Amino acid sequence: MDVLDALMTRCSIRRFRRERVPREVVNKFLQVLFRSPSAADARPWQFVVIDRPDVLDALGRAMPHCDMLLSAPLGILICADPAREKIPGFWPQDCAAAAENLLLAAHGVGLGAVWIGLHPVPDRERTVRELLKVPESLIPFALIAIGPPAERPTWEDRYDPSRIHWNAWGVHESDARTC
Amino acid sequence: MDVLDALMTRCSIRRFRRERVPREVVNKFLQVLFRSPSAADARPWQFVVIDRPDVLDALGRAMPHCDMLLSAPLGILICADPAREKIPGFWPQDCAAAAENLLLAAHGVGLGAVWIGLHPVPDRERTVRELLKVPESLIPFALIAIGPPAERPTWEDRYDPSRIHWNAWGVHESDARTC
Repeated sequence: MDVLDALMTRCSIRRFRRERVPREVVNKFLQVLFRSPSAADARPWQFVVIDRPDVLDALGRAMPHCDMLLSAPLGILICADPAREKIPGFWPQDCAAAAENLLLAAHGVGLGAVWIGLHPVPDRERTVRELLKVPESLIPFALIAIGPPAERPTWEDRYDPSRIHWNAWGVHESDARTC
Repeated sequence: MDVLDALMTRCSIRRFRRERVPREVVNKFLQVLFRSPSAADARPWQFVVIDRPDVLDALGRAMPHCDMLLSAPLGILICADPAREKIPGFWPQDCAAAAENLLLAAHGVGLGAVWIGLHPVPDRERTVRELLKVPESLIPFALIAIGPPAERPTWEDRYDPSRIHWNAWGVHESDARTC
């Protein structure tokens, strides 16, 4: 799939067929995660691959609004590892870039995926930390549920030119053309 | 370019040829930005397109380590708009996902790009706010410098299996296989 098509057509998928994701596909996802950009190339992250249905079910039952985990065959937890940071305060952005790369990789191989935000929701961080035994020095950041899609969401046009400015705030396209 | 290839081969580019990026390419970048995922689909962002060389030069001279702006023909500022947020605390992740999408779109059309982090660096936020007249209610989050690449960085393998866990923290692949 072309990268621009992937960027334009990706949607959140929240219902899956629980069919095993091939190991070579999981490997590809992990390689993509490690290629994500990070501030000063600090790579402040670690990952937990979850492919056991009982573990996915336990996570899905322990958190509200996480039913997607009850049908997903695969989850990948992105954990922040702030001790690795080189420029203070950038780890949420770094981990978010990795999460987005994973969503796009899943879409690119024809799977669906959805970003389950954990940080900064204390209950969710605590639940995932306990179930997956994540040490206190790391932060459960986002859990990406992945699998063959069992729904087809409607694509929505979100383009909003009123939020695009040209060379300075408040200068919109029509203004710029009259300059 | 295939999306998986794009994810694997993207690198930061910090030296450009200052040749105008065609308007239809800029339009594509803006469309891609608005397709980024965000918590509860809040889209807490606005964008400033910078294609005036004098504005790019002023930004590049006003901030340390921002020489990339002195050769880039295009910059896109991602501004956080926290008032649009629906779930508190997620806007840095949402804006970071948009930044990553833009880097990938630039790579996908054969251009280079680099993510210049602004938030949470107070000096940088203030400088960009002043030069681009960003209102106090918004937060200059990241500036992406884009253009035809004038350097070819070496690709680095960053894969690190010691940071991959299976179904629980500390369970690595060799352990998992013996279960």
